[in-house]
Amino acid sequence: MAKLKFQITMSLDGYVAGPGQSPENPLGEGGGALHEWAFATRAFRETHHLEGAADGETGLDDEHAARWNENVGATIMGRNMFGPVRGRWGDSDWTGWWGDDPPYHTPVFVLTNHARDPIQMQGGTTFEFVTDGIESALEQARAAAEELDVAIGGGAETVQQYLRAGLVDEMEIHVVPLLLGGGSRLFENLDGRPAGYECTELVSSPAVAHFRYARKS
Amino acid sequence: MAKLKFQITMSLDGYVAGPGQSPENPLGEGGGALHEWAFATRAFRETHHLEGAADGETGLDDEHAARWNENVGATIMGRNMFGPVRGRWGDSDWTGWWGDDPPYHTPVFVLTNHARDPIQMQGGTTFEFVTDGIESALEQARAAAEELDVAIGGGAETVQQYLRAGLVDEMEIHVVPLLLGGGSRLFENLDGRPAGYECTELVSSPAVAHFRYARKS
Repeated sequence: MAKLKFQITMSLDGYVAGPGQSPENPLGEGGGALHEWAFATRAFRETHHLEGAADGETGLDDEHAARWNENVGATIMGRNMFGPVRGRWGDSDWTGWWGDDPPYHTPVFVLTNHARDPIQMQGGTTFEFVTDGIESALEQARAAAEELDVAIGGGAETVQQYLRAGLVDEMEIHVVPLLLGGGSRLFENLDGRPAGYECTELVSSPAVAHFRYARKS
Repeated sequence: MAKLKFQITMSLDGYVAGPGQSPENPLGEGGGALHEWAFATRAFRETHHLEGAADGETGLDDEHAARWNENVGATIMGRNMFGPVRGRWGDSDWTGWWGDDPPYHTPVFVLTNHARDPIQMQGGTTFEFVTDGIESALEQARAAAEELDVAIGGGAETVQQYLRAGLVDEMEIHVVPLLLGGGSRLFENLDGRPAGYECTELVSSPAVAHFRYARKS
């Protein structure tokens, strides 16, 4: 059956964004370094249309970065992950952080309190704005993904909402040896631990340890 | 120069003991599983006089477990790590969790608010009780260790005190894929991040990822 899954990079001290986050600096102080391991890989560079993709690293981290959109038919993300605009959309022309051709190439459902018309991007990505909660977003994303999986794109709050609701089937946490000292904690606001998961894989490179979990069947 | 260092095992969600800690259950709910990786190793089984030590696992995790008392001439620990007795010692005959021959084989300085006479154990371990703070304990431990290193035995609060004071030279965090959901967080109460460290090693087995840090010189 199609799964709901996410992957996210966390510092050793538990943060997926650094302290002092702001609309202009969404990853917070030092938070950009969280993703250096991914930026170095060929898979990430290719999916994100970065220059010199062919020179990207291959190997373990590349294999894990490549899973990012593997078998994914739709993505759900929080509004802060989509962009810095707060409150009503008004006449905002914000269409995400990712340029004209975002790396998703599928429908992306953005959780928000404020309705907005869908936005059609190049390369098959559409942003659709969901105002009636996480279950509705998941239902719409599952329908759009057909037999493929649905990914949660982030950020921490959105992931926590789905974990609290017990809806996540698989997760992969990439732990990097950064100490950020503040910011958005991934494992917080969960009413206890996410129960019923088992670690199915733990591997590491010198840059990052990959912890993969699946819901016990 | 002799170093101040520690190593500690943490769940992926950041805890070094589980929720619901009590004097009778110092590792909290689920916290015992933190140390399963270490219990499986030959080095841990030997230093802790466990049965079947020769059958313990060798390999990566064993090498890291073996560092636990490598080059260590003295240990500092918090009172809760030493035992469940609270307040004044009175006529308590508590001598630690480790039996007659504790695995330290060196002086161990226990941070407490309540004076107590030193306790001489078998095998070279002595417990000395320090009532005048972490700097004093470190000074006494350094003197006792002579040219060897001083280890912080735990728990989280004691480690945090030395990190906050900027006194730690090296640390190794063993991250296991447990999700405990509560308990004692290692990276908390630090007034921001422990600054000035670099990761010198990141390796993993299927059971645990070992993150090693050193203070940048």
